[in-house]
Amino acid sequence: MEQPPIGDVFGEMIRDAYAVRTGVGPRPLAGGRVPRPVIEVIERDDGLINGAPADHYLGEPAEWQPHDHRALRLCRGHVLDVGTGAGRTAIELQRRGMAVTGLDTSPGAIDVARRRGLRDTVLNTVDAFAGASVRYDTFLLLGNNLGLLEGPSRAPALLAALARLANPGARIIAQGTDPYGTTDPVHVAYHQRNRERGRLGGQLRLRLRYRRLATEWFDYLNCSAEELEMLLQGTPWRLKAIDDEDRPYYLAVMELAG
Amino acid sequence: MEQPPIGDVFGEMIRDAYAVRTGVGPRPLAGGRVPRPVIEVIERDDGLINGAPADHYLGEPAEWQPHDHRALRLCRGHVLDVGTGAGRTAIELQRRGMAVTGLDTSPGAIDVARRRGLRDTVLNTVDAFAGASVRYDTFLLLGNNLGLLEGPSRAPALLAALARLANPGARIIAQGTDPYGTTDPVHVAYHQRNRERGRLGGQLRLRLRYRRLATEWFDYLNCSAEELEMLLQGTPWRLKAIDDEDRPYYLAVMELAG
Repeated sequence: MEQPPIGDVFGEMIRDAYAVRTGVGPRPLAGGRVPRPVIEVIERDDGLINGAPADHYLGEPAEWQPHDHRALRLCRGHVLDVGTGAGRTAIELQRRGMAVTGLDTSPGAIDVARRRGLRDTVLNTVDAFAGASVRYDTFLLLGNNLGLLEGPSRAPALLAALARLANPGARIIAQGTDPYGTTDPVHVAYHQRNRERGRLGGQLRLRLRYRRLATEWFDYLNCSAEELEMLLQGTPWRLKAIDDEDRPYYLAVMELAG
Repeated sequence: MEQPPIGDVFGEMIRDAYAVRTGVGPRPLAGGRVPRPVIEVIERDDGLINGAPADHYLGEPAEWQPHDHRALRLCRGHVLDVGTGAGRTAIELQRRGMAVTGLDTSPGAIDVARRRGLRDTVLNTVDAFAGASVRYDTFLLLGNNLGLLEGPSRAPALLAALARLANPGARIIAQGTDPYGTTDPVHVAYHQRNRERGRLGGQLRLRLRYRRLATEWFDYLNCSAEELEMLLQGTPWRLKAIDDEDRPYYLAVMELAG
């Protein structure tokens, strides 16, 4: 098989999902006529492949999971939505009159977020954006974006970059997934293999694929609350609360120390 | 990435889709708790990847596409449903009192078809089953299974095997897809590349993946009615009718010559 070229997988997928949801613009068709579902394909480095409909990235508040609503109630002050995607939650905060910036590394996602009405967007990494002079009171990492911590080697740098962007008393509100509730042998074996390699059990090695594009392989972290607390040691952030009402999903609230 | 092991991709997927639809038996969960959608992942040899929800393989008649209903009205006598899958159409023919055999090469699919009530099943290839002494009046290739003709080198052998299983006057009712209505540059380039390699434009080279399993790479044919007529030359079968009311999908009716 030809190796798929590296590109803006997430953005191309979100553009198509937006075209399907709105009925506006070109979208994938079977045989030039029949709309195809827009499916996110996620490969893991053990050969596991999963597909999931992409439409939830565009979900209106009535379609959200309960913890998304609880997360928004925890926002205060100036909000940076990290990995804003199609702007799902940032647009709702904006609608409520809050000051919110949507940051993403995907040009296609930022394009869709702007077309949906999100006014303040940043196409950048957190690390590069941390050189800016703007400061925030809340950092929102929803849609499982606690995973952006990647693992023990990346987490301190990301958390330091967020601290550089933080006003005193700032919070991170992040949604994570505890991967250890499973008895599925495929996942149990993967966690074990990771630990044998000195990684956290849920330190996933993934790439996304959509149509002819792929991302590079990247780490994405599913961790327990205990593992998160360990990752925060030596960083400017302290774990203040865990809301695990929607297990295996949880909301972690972290506050700037001192 | 580890290469995924070869296995009964379709069967494992159908078992999971059946567990999700019925609520009975183990099914894939996120974090051990939240049901995951069952998605069929199809890779093409140009790196294209597509996902599609698998639930349609279990669709009740009210959920079918219109051409499926028209296909069943064309059945007569003893019916062999080739690539019966979860038995979607064979079970409906059986319910109508017709004599129908469901054939598939997937043990998992045959298992689900039997659990759903299909009485007469064959776990075999058409070629090996053609040594049996049973004879049929109708061969049904629905769910795009005209694609099983693969291309010019495979089609004569499959058509000869069906002829060995045929009573005089037998018919093939096959659903195909005309791939040439598209203007999508990804598909137009693929058709062109195929032709440059001496293949039919829509002679797809595919593999299926589901969770940790993959199939071998195989050919699967999307062809126009004109190409089908060409493939039938020199075989015992003649094209009698094309119903292309649901373009790009069509039903082809073929009859045994002489």
